[in-house]
Amino acid sequence: MQNRQYLLASRPVGKPTAENWSLVSNEVPEPGEGELVVRIDYISLDPAMRGWMNDARSYIEPVGIGEVMRAGTVGIVQASRNPDYAVGDAVYGHLGVQEYALTDGKGLHKVDPSLAPLPRYLGVLGMPGMTAYFGLLNTGQPQAGETVVVSGAAGAVGTVVGQIAKIKGCRVVGIAGGPDKCRYLEQELGFDAAVDYRADDFAAQLKAACPKGIDVYFDNVGGDILDLVLTRINVRARIVICGAISQYNNTTPVKGPSNYLSLLVNRARMEGIVVFDNAKNYGKAAAEMAGWLAEGKLKAKEHIEKGFERFPEVLNMLFTGENFGKLVLEIEHD
Amino acid sequence: MQNRQYLLASRPVGKPTAENWSLVSNEVPEPGEGELVVRIDYISLDPAMRGWMNDARSYIEPVGIGEVMRAGTVGIVQASRNPDYAVGDAVYGHLGVQEYALTDGKGLHKVDPSLAPLPRYLGVLGMPGMTAYFGLLNTGQPQAGETVVVSGAAGAVGTVVGQIAKIKGCRVVGIAGGPDKCRYLEQELGFDAAVDYRADDFAAQLKAACPKGIDVYFDNVGGDILDLVLTRINVRARIVICGAISQYNNTTPVKGPSNYLSLLVNRARMEGIVVFDNAKNYGKAAAEMAGWLAEGKLKAKEHIEKGFERFPEVLNMLFTGENFGKLVLEIEHD
Repeated sequence: MQNRQYLLASRPVGKPTAENWSLVSNEVPEPGEGELVVRIDYISLDPAMRGWMNDARSYIEPVGIGEVMRAGTVGIVQASRNPDYAVGDAVYGHLGVQEYALTDGKGLHKVDPSLAPLPRYLGVLGMPGMTAYFGLLNTGQPQAGETVVVSGAAGAVGTVVGQIAKIKGCRVVGIAGGPDKCRYLEQELGFDAAVDYRADDFAAQLKAACPKGIDVYFDNVGGDILDLVLTRINVRARIVICGAISQYNNTTPVKGPSNYLSLLVNRARMEGIVVFDNAKNYGKAAAEMAGWLAEGKLKAKEHIEKGFERFPEVLNMLFTGENFGKLVLEIEHD
Repeated sequence: MQNRQYLLASRPVGKPTAENWSLVSNEVPEPGEGELVVRIDYISLDPAMRGWMNDARSYIEPVGIGEVMRAGTVGIVQASRNPDYAVGDAVYGHLGVQEYALTDGKGLHKVDPSLAPLPRYLGVLGMPGMTAYFGLLNTGQPQAGETVVVSGAAGAVGTVVGQIAKIKGCRVVGIAGGPDKCRYLEQELGFDAAVDYRADDFAAQLKAACPKGIDVYFDNVGGDILDLVLTRINVRARIVICGAISQYNNTTPVKGPSNYLSLLVNRARMEGIVVFDNAKNYGKAAAEMAGWLAEGKLKAKEHIEKGFERFPEVLNMLFTGENFGKLVLEIEHD
């Protein structure tokens, strides 16, 4: 049986292109002692993957040239010589952009397909959900009655940030691209307002949506939106730096926030987060999130695209803002 | 008797020029009931004054056109019909750039010329000292053994930040302009290293001076130096944004820190401070600082220039980096 894999062929300059990838096929290996083989059914597509393609010091090693591209995945154990995993178990792990993975089980954990559909373990119940949960609650520290603004609001992290902020009693304003996403945030997810950053009067709309200023800003995009928000923050505001998708494909230097001195004027704070730091508390968070899902307070939104070979184009949907909710690539096995 | 005053005549574009000021002279008024007249002996010159000259929302109202320029001052009570102040008392207050001030005593407090020379109440025992104390200790939270870097290190705030960090057991690296200042920081103030930002190999020198990276950065300058420091911060670093003197006279937009995503990679924090927030704790801080001064652990460095009429040029020494220690204008009364 063949295993197709996407390898990183070269490092992108700007937006990833077809040339940065090589699609190869190998025989699916047999597990050795202590190993297992997972059939990957869903691959998580995340903005952070763009950073992993760079040859730069970061919170995690870059993916090496010629290596299988790193990605979060869920799948089903296909063969096992590892006592912790049986054939048929559903598992989550960073198994990469491939159809099958041979693994020793390190970093893997089981998920329960009867509690939630498998793609959800890549979204609300996976890294994006954990990122939203810990980034908002631990670093953003929203208090009831405060105004929380989130950018990339219709994305995997943003949808969860906004909903948790609502659960905590905040006024929630989402920033997203296009009227469909804004309508969804307001009508389906209960955001108090959603503002379209592509609108001509975006700045005025944001101001109107935040009549009491901004106490917490959860930033997934960076660039001009971060700069605009900085002009509207309140005293002792907290800005959570989760990402900067507007800057990831830059071929020019990153645009730093020109208005950062608003931090001084407002005695405000800007702080970066990396979800992995909270690994030991994932279980507790996932349990609380599952409870909110069950109560209907938290809604999951997945955007599933099919076809393993489409990985390069589907990944790039993140950078054009085409995805709506958690972007997942589904692999259809014969 | 005449009172000369510097009024703000127009708002500067870029560096303040002679045209932005008007020098006027009026009869010194008699105090009414509850009022007093202070003879101003020393005027504090601070980078923050540049911000007060702009017509922009900030942590404090701008100085109005035609108003006496705001400044911290120390002087001697000359006449009093206020029961809290007697002729001869030495006082501190924001009495502005003038030779005499009529005041109702609000915001004024007495200082003791037998404990410290009067200009010291504008430096180590005044706002710059308080800024250093609270900004470093409350926001920077330095731990013994950590590396603390301070820019504008030979200035009023920087000299105190570095010395307090030494008292707290940190490795202290100062960034200053020119070999004289660097030598002073290392040899007189006990900094572990001082790096000249004007040197061609500044970046390499800073790296060499911080072999274990940077845990706390106390920033008085902004611009390229902030960006460089961001490339060298450690995980969970704290960046205290106290000022950005490199940007205050910009006629182009402020240079935001292009490397701000280092905050994300390092889960680090950047936080602004305004000294006035700590007003209720000034007394406690001043007592601790006075103790350190008495023990010789903390040295004061004042840079005193004479001549009231020289105010515009002396103020600008802050922006060319000509001052060395706390910059004070002394008024010589006949």
